Amino acid sequence: MFIECFHHSPRSNWAYAYDKDTIHLRVQTKRDDVEEVTAITGDKYDWDQHHEDIPMEKVAADRYYDYWETAVRPQYKRFSYGFRLRSGDEAVYMTESGIYGEQPHPAGGYYEFPYLHEIDIFTAPEWAKEAVFYQIMPDRFANGNDKLNPEEIADWGSPPTHDNYFGGDLQGVIDKLDHLTDLGITALYLTPIFESPSNHKYDTIDYRKIDPHFGDAELLRKLVQECHERGIRVVLDAVFNHTSEQFPHFQDVVRNGEASRYADWFHIRSYPVEVKEDGGATYDTFGFFGHMPKLNTSNPEVKEYLLDVAKKWIEDTDIDGWRLDVANEVDHHFWRDFRKTVKGAKPDAYIIGEVWSDSRMWLLGDQFDSVMNYPFANKVMGFFTSDDVSGREFAEQMNNLLMRYPQQTNEVIFNVLSSHDTARVLTRVGENKQRLKLAVVFLLTYIGTPCIFYGDEIGLKGGDDPDCRVCMVWEEEGQDRELYDFYKLLIDLRKEHPVLRSGRFRFLQAEDDNGRLIYERLGEGEHFTIWMNNTGEHAVLSHAMNTDDWKDALTGDHVPVTDGEQRVELEPYGYRILHRHL
Amino acid sequence: MFIECFHHSPRSNWAYAYDKDTIHLRVQTKRDDVEEVTAITGDKYDWDQHHEDIPMEKVAADRYYDYWETAVRPQYKRFSYGFRLRSGDEAVYMTESGIYGEQPHPAGGYYEFPYLHEIDIFTAPEWAKEAVFYQIMPDRFANGNDKLNPEEIADWGSPPTHDNYFGGDLQGVIDKLDHLTDLGITALYLTPIFESPSNHKYDTIDYRKIDPHFGDAELLRKLVQECHERGIRVVLDAVFNHTSEQFPHFQDVVRNGEASRYADWFHIRSYPVEVKEDGGATYDTFGFFGHMPKLNTSNPEVKEYLLDVAKKWIEDTDIDGWRLDVANEVDHHFWRDFRKTVKGAKPDAYIIGEVWSDSRMWLLGDQFDSVMNYPFANKVMGFFTSDDVSGREFAEQMNNLLMRYPQQTNEVIFNVLSSHDTARVLTRVGENKQRLKLAVVFLLTYIGTPCIFYGDEIGLKGGDDPDCRVCMVWEEEGQDRELYDFYKLLIDLRKEHPVLRSGRFRFLQAEDDNGRLIYERLGEGEHFTIWMNNTGEHAVLSHAMNTDDWKDALTGDHVPVTDGEQRVELEPYGYRILHRHL
Repeated sequence: MFIECFHHSPRSNWAYAYDKDTIHLRVQTKRDDVEEVTAITGDKYDWDQHHEDIPMEKVAADRYYDYWETAVRPQYKRFSYGFRLRSGDEAVYMTESGIYGEQPHPAGGYYEFPYLHEIDIFTAPEWAKEAVFYQIMPDRFANGNDKLNPEEIADWGSPPTHDNYFGGDLQGVIDKLDHLTDLGITALYLTPIFESPSNHKYDTIDYRKIDPHFGDAELLRKLVQECHERGIRVVLDAVFNHTSEQFPHFQDVVRNGEASRYADWFHIRSYPVEVKEDGGATYDTFGFFGHMPKLNTSNPEVKEYLLDVAKKWIEDTDIDGWRLDVANEVDHHFWRDFRKTVKGAKPDAYIIGEVWSDSRMWLLGDQFDSVMNYPFANKVMGFFTSDDVSGREFAEQMNNLLMRYPQQTNEVIFNVLSSHDTARVLTRVGENKQRLKLAVVFLLTYIGTPCIFYGDEIGLKGGDDPDCRVCMVWEEEGQDRELYDFYKLLIDLRKEHPVLRSGRFRFLQAEDDNGRLIYERLGEGEHFTIWMNNTGEHAVLSHAMNTDDWKDALTGDHVPVTDGEQRVELEPYGYRILHRHL
Repeated sequence: MFIECFHHSPRSNWAYAYDKDTIHLRVQTKRDDVEEVTAITGDKYDWDQHHEDIPMEKVAADRYYDYWETAVRPQYKRFSYGFRLRSGDEAVYMTESGIYGEQPHPAGGYYEFPYLHEIDIFTAPEWAKEAVFYQIMPDRFANGNDKLNPEEIADWGSPPTHDNYFGGDLQGVIDKLDHLTDLGITALYLTPIFESPSNHKYDTIDYRKIDPHFGDAELLRKLVQECHERGIRVVLDAVFNHTSEQFPHFQDVVRNGEASRYADWFHIRSYPVEVKEDGGATYDTFGFFGHMPKLNTSNPEVKEYLLDVAKKWIEDTDIDGWRLDVANEVDHHFWRDFRKTVKGAKPDAYIIGEVWSDSRMWLLGDQFDSVMNYPFANKVMGFFTSDDVSGREFAEQMNNLLMRYPQQTNEVIFNVLSSHDTARVLTRVGENKQRLKLAVVFLLTYIGTPCIFYGDEIGLKGGDDPDCRVCMVWEEEGQDRELYDFYKLLIDLRKEHPVLRSGRFRFLQAEDDNGRLIYERLGEGEHFTIWMNNTGEHAVLSHAMNTDDWKDALTGDHVPVTDGEQRVELEPYGYRILHRHL
């Protein structure tokens, strides 16, 4: 066995409380190297009376590693543990203090799960696990009140630029709720709506005021209320990393320099506060944008100010959570207090961080409920947009991502295919609608909370920002209604079957030399298998099956199993979703 | 290259802020496999203008891996990064999204250090890094006031049992401060002193009252004051995991069952609250001790109560920190608030958790400053008590522990050779005083805050609890004065040379087939090499050296370097400490 490839850490995704009675353990071994892994568990205070060997299951494999997992339910909420790893006649014992040929005397030097505290468990709101989200940029969604239009607006549907406005507003969102209800949406994520000098509003002037081009607090309250009446939750965008240069506190520092009482609200490197000729600012900014000064969130005054904003909008308008812009560039202390404040105001509020890379440090239970899953988007779109990624590679990539986080995190991670910061999904697949559909089937049958970027469901196109931020099309003739019905069908399917949200996810087949896939969702009394042919050729897939009770989940047709084998024919870029009750 | 053995995580000990400008990165590779590792760093918002390739240094090796490290000082406090690993003609690129044969286009998919926030840096009090600690069990140290004696006390120096008392008290500690000053001690850790029905007092009845057999708050204040006048800090023991069964709130639950207003202060499994005939309790306990009911620290009332205790003793008596008993079995939320409370009351208070295993989850900067380093004790005593561990194995074990934590954590981790919970050090080395001295030289020239268990310095013996908890011997004829002078000499040496606290630690020689070692401390304008012969045979060690300015740090003798080589003769179990100025 390749001992050097073993990996375990007594924390994070490797050892975590799943619920108040259950701890999940995971171990990594070199791929196809180890035949059997057993968790050796016991109570360090009385090992002889309280110990148990628990077999582990190989739950996933990525390019380099197999992953083994098991659940432990210790009677006294605590246990020490090691692992026995076996291949052929060889067995070794892995503990925190090293790897041994014979079992070391327990429990000194073993790993420890010291005590399962319910308060330390990562938990996200139950509704977020069930939700199908829809992301809206208000300026581009619908214009419900011409009177609020910015002075100059471009024609609805003309090409978006970095600077132009289209006049969309909150009344527009309210007016179009039927569209969302019909589609099956259960939660909205609105990009920023507070006063700001830009069309995207990611540079705030006044956190306590709805942008007058969008409406006012009263209208937001109405929007939330109407959404709630339709069973739709509403999440707003909190841009707490930085402000607009027009933010009054920053202007005070520009004017008064070091003497400003807000000087410590930002990260000023030198005075006077200015953007120099070479474009460099004398203060920290978001990216290199001089008009977006970075807030000093470790200043208690700033923290209090922003937390008050977070609380105010929940209390005033009953919103259901916050999406946090550039969340990974704000300090952890701030987010810990943010969570306390937000959950204090609304215990089932949902907190989604914008973090593009590994997010474990924010998902320990004390900060975010979820993060925007861009690594998912990149890998899914990488697979469904090309012929160069094999099914096996894609499965390895997904497994690698799944193993990054605890199971309950995977169940609420915010899965997107596209957003205001990426090209649109139809454009990314080279306008191959069949491929787009495969990606959407994957999104809506995968583990995690899906979010649809407004208009993707009716076939909007657009490259990177600003092109992706096109206006919504409301005339039916401009919409791809067939695509819309397809989205609707898949959303309905997900909502109808809890197993698609909470069930175990596994790849059943994913080969080296082609883009075909079979994967399953299992649990909650149901079983799905999803068959995909991400190639331009006709394909026949087959897989061993024990029972003959499979139906096509969309048509209801019986899909037979003959001699223990199920064969499914797929068109180029075809898919089938099979279902049975357990 | 063995790609499967590469390891990096964008957090914790693998990527951490060392100070407000510096981030340390570490990478693991298979031992003796990779020749060169380079960190490829840049600013994701403008990679072309802001990027730098930084060579990494191989800083340590353990049984299976080499560890590479470098420091990054990004101009804008943020950077993305990957690694280039080279062996011969082969080079691969390692990023968060995978391992590639060619450099992937930066910065998408690279690791991220999103922003260096000073508030998130792990920092411990400066004084703790400089300190030499001394642990006292008050009942066993000195009896300064006969009037406070428990009703029945055993003769001073008779064998300790689990239940007997010896009459030591706080006045005794005050009376003996000259001993500590003479020895060179700069900080005290007292085991619990609050009212309790046991001799060890790890089961508290009243957290707000000094045990009457030890003294009162006034006397504690005097003790702290007299210590401070001598430059000695005082840390007390906080037993917040559990109480005594006589704790009044628990007694209230015993009496009133579910109706008690303190029912939720504990983890009651069923009523009535009792210890059953088979010894099992109907409530959670420390270990399986029915007389130590576990506190429910997630109950806000309990938290407030205990945090108030933590604050009260700092405010009332000016103590300098808390050592936290069974710290890993208390929830993280509690410790986060504990830190805020304690640092609020005294910003440079030192917080040491009792955690016997991997402690990374408590050392992220938001909970403890340090933990009792029992893994260190086990490995050091394992090496210096036996002929079975080679120098190489020992070096591998130490390197493995060093790589577990950030450098600044290593500098203040609480290194012990023995404590009230282990056999005494002289007993562990089979009463071989030469071996004991080697262990002490190692403790006092190693990275981390050393702590001496009372009496080890005068040759007290004793096996596991209760034997190790023997009475201090105060008659000089009963003390090993030669050993005492040796401890004193080494303590002086450590205090005189900052490099022994803050300098880089490296093994220079550690071989497979013997127990000989050379290691160095380097920095702060100084350079030490420590030569050790942990074998029963005479030995000559040699090592390549560039300069001929080495002196024996204890005798001042010049130790020559000839033809670029330094040769040092060592007696069986001998050592030499060499020094030069840089």
